[in-house]
Amino acid sequence: MPFAYPLTGLVTLLTLIVYFWMAMNVGKVRTKLNVPAPATTGPDEFMRTLRVHENTMEGLLLFLPALWLFALSSHDLWAAVIGIFYPVARIIYARGYYEAAGKRSLGFSIGIIATGLLLVGSLIELILAAIAIYG
Amino acid sequence: MPFAYPLTGLVTLLTLIVYFWMAMNVGKVRTKLNVPAPATTGPDEFMRTLRVHENTMEGLLLFLPALWLFALSSHDLWAAVIGIFYPVARIIYARGYYEAAGKRSLGFSIGIIATGLLLVGSLIELILAAIAIYG
Amino acid sequence: MPFAYPLTGLVTLLTLIVYFWMAMNVGKVRTKLNVPAPATTGPDEFMRTLRVHENTMEGLLLFLPALWLFALSSHDLWAAVIGIFYPVARIIYARGYYEAAGKRSLGFSIGIIATGLLLVGSLIELILAAIAIYG
Repeated sequence: MPFAYPLTGLVTLLTLIVYFWMAMNVGKVRTKLNVPAPATTGPDEFMRTLRVHENTMEGLLLFLPALWLFALSSHDLWAAVIGIFYPVARIIYARGYYEAAGKRSLGFSIGIIATGLLLVGSLIELILAAIAIYG
Repeated sequence: MPFAYPLTGLVTLLTLIVYFWMAMNVGKVRTKLNVPAPATTGPDEFMRTLRVHENTMEGLLLFLPALWLFALSSHDLWAAVIGIFYPVARIIYARGYYEAAGKRSLGFSIGIIATGLLLVGSLIELILAAIAIYG
Repeated sequence: MPFAYPLTGLVTLLTLIVYFWMAMNVGKVRTKLNVPAPATTGPDEFMRTLRVHENTMEGLLLFLPALWLFALSSHDLWAAVIGIFYPVARIIYARGYYEAAGKRSLGFSIGIIATGLLLVGSLIELILAAIAIYG
């Protein structure tokens, strides 16, 4: 029997690839601006590149659990349809923030909305499941 | 058939909401103390607010896997009964640390104990499952 | 019926224990070098100890989803056989980086290769599952 959540899995993989690309950008900017590890402070361009990666890490800890709770309590296809907005939003966020701190809002907002929908959807589905099992 | 781990899912959602509240507090303190992104250093109150969020992120990477490994290898209800202490502990931790660095220990300790119980419980259940399947 | 992924679960637990050990080392070096929380900058030895922990956190967000997507879409045993290289690699990474920033490459590279294999394996398995279910 095939794994029942392949689309949610593929959205997860795409998100991880976006996240890995951001980590590689931190490595590149460390070399370009001469901010060798383990330093975590430096010129503005370094800080923005670092924050893109770190803020996405912070966001993944909301997004990935929300995505999977929604998939498991609802349906693979719906989770993937909402979830696909997240990696796209984070690419927009990164490209904006790499230019200037002021250009990070659009991508950030789309990502938060997608995460919020998954959280609210999960909450409803989990309450219904709890009532069905324990009620 | 309803999702079999609704209570563990609800504990996860509650924890994510606490974590999101901490992220919003970082945004607020950035404005209040004039520490615009991408800076990650600033006055003591900023650093404490930032560390509450980051330390919780660090902790979530232990807590969430431990919670779900225990739920999946044991039972939804027991995982939720132990797990519910974690988001409560992190609220106590945050409220303490927001006041002073010295007041962060109580909440931190309760959270670590809950995480430790889930880790030890998972270890026992996983070893038993490994023996049952591969032994 | 026992939990079907006990070896993947045990690799996860081992990885979490390595990660927890790194967190405790940050606490120790804070005391030793007198860098009390909430500071996140300090002498080189403090920065290296902090970065070992943080970089492993960054890596866990790639590794754990990749490990579990591969286990769920392929097999518990294969996931564990590849996955076990990761916690070992991160111990090598930490021991190197604790000595000098230049000694962190070997462990880092082994960890990235293990993560990459799990990501590529998951991608193939998830595409096959998507075709089987939706194709």
